[in-house]
Amino acid sequence: MRASRLNDFSRLCIHTITTRPWSIEEAIEKYAAAGVTGISVWRDSLVGRDIANIGNRIRSLNLEIVSTVRGGFFPNIDETARKDAIADNIQCIEDSSVLGSPLVVLVCGASEKQDLSESRDQIKAGIDAVLPYAQESGVKLAIEPLQPMYADTRSAVNTIKQANEIAEYFDSQFLGVAVDVYHVWWDPDLESEIQRCGKQGKLFAFHICDWLTPTVDMLNDRGLMGDGCIPLSRIRSWMESAGFSGYNEVEIFSNKYWAGDQDEFLNKIKEAYIKHS
Amino acid sequence: MRASRLNDFSRLCIHTITTRPWSIEEAIEKYAAAGVTGISVWRDSLVGRDIANIGNRIRSLNLEIVSTVRGGFFPNIDETARKDAIADNIQCIEDSSVLGSPLVVLVCGASEKQDLSESRDQIKAGIDAVLPYAQESGVKLAIEPLQPMYADTRSAVNTIKQANEIAEYFDSQFLGVAVDVYHVWWDPDLESEIQRCGKQGKLFAFHICDWLTPTVDMLNDRGLMGDGCIPLSRIRSWMESAGFSGYNEVEIFSNKYWAGDQDEFLNKIKEAYIKHS
Repeated sequence: MRASRLNDFSRLCIHTITTRPWSIEEAIEKYAAAGVTGISVWRDSLVGRDIANIGNRIRSLNLEIVSTVRGGFFPNIDETARKDAIADNIQCIEDSSVLGSPLVVLVCGASEKQDLSESRDQIKAGIDAVLPYAQESGVKLAIEPLQPMYADTRSAVNTIKQANEIAEYFDSQFLGVAVDVYHVWWDPDLESEIQRCGKQGKLFAFHICDWLTPTVDMLNDRGLMGDGCIPLSRIRSWMESAGFSGYNEVEIFSNKYWAGDQDEFLNKIKEAYIKHS
Repeated sequence: MRASRLNDFSRLCIHTITTRPWSIEEAIEKYAAAGVTGISVWRDSLVGRDIANIGNRIRSLNLEIVSTVRGGFFPNIDETARKDAIADNIQCIEDSSVLGSPLVVLVCGASEKQDLSESRDQIKAGIDAVLPYAQESGVKLAIEPLQPMYADTRSAVNTIKQANEIAEYFDSQFLGVAVDVYHVWWDPDLESEIQRCGKQGKLFAFHICDWLTPTVDMLNDRGLMGDGCIPLSRIRSWMESAGFSGYNEVEIFSNKYWAGDQDEFLNKIKEAYIKHS
């Protein structure tokens, strides 16, 4: 199956971190003026804001709020810190409800100070603790598997298979999976695990960018679609074939792009979106 | 099952790249004087040498040659380059035979200019082409899966499961797997895939080092055993439980250690080997 053609921006969402130098207010105006239709809101951009007002402003410009980014980071060797993480996730769910965001993306967390198996257990315990709040608030949660190079500190969930297993374990319509091409493009089981996830109705989000060669920074050197080696349209075709019809969310952490002109970058994103996604 | 205790250096092997500032001649003398018992020889250290003489010198000091590092790098969009890679692997096998090395480690290769599936097919084609030479020379080949962050240029084989599948496909006693903790420590299927590999008699090599937090260089910032988050003795216990009784091979790429005094580093390796491996 081929991916659908992207002829317009009706499924283009941008993560506010992608244009990090812009405030949330600027990002909203700029995205809307550029014809972008979706926005995923990073929590750091909401600090000190009236969250309900931000949500209203977004909707008034016909932008759709796709997700809040990010919850998670459950594991810690310290029990108090784990309780704090759970409280923070509950706050994130409440903030999402106030904002009018239907989804919280979970970067599940890890700690280099303990075993991965321990971190994985604590992730399940954390999800177990916050899922009732998500359901009550009508806000869904999406487990985002992260590239294994982040297994020391960012996520002990490193493949879509693991994410699927956790989602299936809880078996809640409020818990699914976020597929970010940057983290999973290398996985030989990617197509089959996307299908598996789709069959359960758990494909909640799709994040795009590209993998650069060479990658000079392990965190902040993601590429614009088309500038790297990820087979974007093929992976998108797998998503669509598995029933996903949501937004293609551009999430690019890049010291290089953050240092440049954000208006130009936004134009490049739109061009790359049509040409290479 | 617990790992056996490491009370001496009878299973300690060091890769010559670990002490890269030393020539092969220096490395041989220094390792032997330090009571190290195994050596894995990187090909770059043999350039311009009489390989048979190097092999004789190693054996004369009661060092055991564990492997030659490294063959592989089969994929390329250019067919001539693929043929050159096969010729170079055959040369590597011949050199190993002359050196008296029983094993060539394969870093299978990848190219950001083509699909991973294409690279994976070319890896199988490359192994198919060189395996008869390996068998004829009595030199084994070990597929080393590499961390997915190297999937763009270094290896399209990124999990031990993939390596096992290739090894099982060829079903030759001359083709097995090299397990390097740096590349596979994060894998939720690690224990079961080690068991699977051991059942087939295909656990050919075991490489150790550690994963540092933070890792500041994607290639050359490996840690000394105990300085990172890899559960070394647990993974070693899985290897031993699966029938592996070979060397623990210290393979550390480190700009930091290469810049320092290699005699001191060798002492640190010995200490870390007993304490943390």
